[in-house]
Order: sequence, then C-alpha cells, then structure tokens
Amino acid sequence: MNRPLRLFSAAALMLASSLAMSQAGPPSPEAQAKTAVENRQAAFKLISLNFGPISGLMRNQAVDPAVVARNAARIESLAGMLPELFERDTREFKSIQTAALDGIWNSQADFKTKADALVAAAGKLAAAAKAGDSAATSAAAGEVGRTCGACHDAYRAKPPGR
Amino acid sequence: MNRPLRLFSAAALMLASSLAMSQAGPPSPEAQAKTAVENRQAAFKLISLNFGPISGLMRNQAVDPAVVARNAARIESLAGMLPELFERDTREFKSIQTAALDGIWNSQADFKTKADALVAAAGKLAAAAKAGDSAATSAAAGEVGRTCGACHDAYRAKPPGR
Repeated sequence: MNRPLRLFSAAALMLASSLAMSQAGPPSPEAQAKTAVENRQAAFKLISLNFGPISGLMRNQAVDPAVVARNAARIESLAGMLPELFERDTREFKSIQTAALDGIWNSQADFKTKADALVAAAGKLAAAAKAGDSAATSAAAGEVGRTCGACHDAYRAKPPGR
Repeated sequence: MNRPLRLFSAAALMLASSLAMSQAGPPSPEAQAKTAVENRQAAFKLISLNFGPISGLMRNQAVDPAVVARNAARIESLAGMLPELFERDTREFKSIQTAALDGIWNSQADFKTKADALVAAAGKLAAAAKAGDSAATSAAAGEVGRTCGACHDAYRAKPPGR
C-alpha cells in the first residue's frame, strides 16, 4: 500500500470507531470509571515491573546499568501519568474493585503534593541512572520508594492481613 | 526521618518482600504467566489512552501540541516495552484470558519484526511531535496506526462479531 493510502486507512479506521461510538452513545459514567481504574492500575503494574531491576541494584545485585537507565526513564514517564489518571473521581462506584481510598478526592491538594513528589523523585532517579552513577541511582531509588510508600500509606487500601 | 534512615527503610521493605517471596517460594508458572498477560495488557491500555488526543489531531481537531508531544513520548516509551513483555510464552495456560494468538511464539521472528516496526514508528512520531510539526506528526501517527494494525491482524484474536 502506498503512503497516502496507508494514512487514509488508519484515519478511516479511527473515524469508523469514532462514528461507532457516536452511534452507540458515549460509555456510561460507570463504564468510564471502570476504564479509569483499569488505566490507573495499568500504570502501577508497569511502574512495579520496571522497578524490579532497580530494587536489585539497591540490594547490591549485579544489574546491567543500561537496563537500570532504561527502566528509570520508563518509570519517570509512567509516574508522570499518575496525577491525570486520578483526575476522574471514581468514589461513587462502589461495585468497581479498587484499592484507591476516597481520601484521594477528599484531600486533593495533599494527594497532588504526594503524587508530584513521586514525579520529582522519578525524574531524579532517571537522571542519576542516565548518568550511570550507581550510588546516586540507589539513593534516588530509595527516595522513589519513600514517595510511593507515603502515598500508599495515606491513600491505598491495605491488602487483607496487613 | 533523615536521609540514611529513609533509604534504610526503603531497602528494608524491599528486602522483607524479597524474603517473604523466598519463604513462600516463587510464583507458580501459571501465576507468572497471568502476571505477564496483565503487564502486556497494561501497556496496550496506556498506549491506547495516550493515542486518544493524537487521533484527534489526525481528524483535524484542535489539540494542544504540548499534550501531543507528551503523549507521543509516552507511547514511544510504552512501545519499547512490548518486545520484552511478549518474551514469556503463555500459550500453554488456556485458562488465562488473552487476545494474544499462539502465532506470536510460533512465528517469533515475524512478530519481532512487527513489534520493532511499531517501536520505530513510535520513535518517529515522538520526534515529529517534539519538533511541533503538525503535518509530520499526523503522518507519523498514521504509520503508528498501520504498524499497530499489522500486528493485530496477524497476532490478536478478533473481538466477537468482527
């Protein structure tokens, strides 16, 4: 397929799905809330996955510095999504499984402070990892862990038995 | 808490969870496969979410160029995770819900070619969006859509009714 045709196909596909949505109407508020919860959880899953090798570095395991730098950059990108991923208030939909506590929307300023602290810490981690400074990376990773924990303590439901 | 103590706490927490894992043993192969599927789906969810405003640009809607550049950079980061997210072969666990077709692991070289094509297209999209060139961004986004589609046609189960 030549270039203009390919572009047309992609645009036609998107237009078609947009038309399909307008015919069926937009998703219900509950369906939108469910999608919002899934997107939030998606970001946390990928942050956790990419933090794995970095926590290895913190325990003095041998970890490829290129993997650490790559994963730290990914965590910075993912952390930057969190503030907007929590913009949708999902408190009213009690049927949707989430560990997000109501305090996120009851104390929005404090939540934003804590989320911004993670974004800042992730930026420092990515910079230290890119520079290849293992000690500074480990220290910055500790600060990322601390900012994660501060928000979880305040705004994430405890798993059963803790 | 002072800095060394904070670092110690974060490290202690990770050590504790690592010890807990070693006491309980590693997750079963099926549990690992389930986690792998969830991580894959997480990456696709966030790519789709971040592509939203870019598809708006392709339909000539007014979209903040800063949002386009930010989201394109995120898509580049997320697309880069896909090849490794499919490294774990999950074919044998038929109880796990996934749209990933067996061909991904039956035709690994072709799958990798298609996944790498997305990574390359996402890199071009991010570069065009960063440069603020709206026409080039739209064209690059079309190519991202085409590479997504090529892989989905070959390796993603069709939703019911299509």
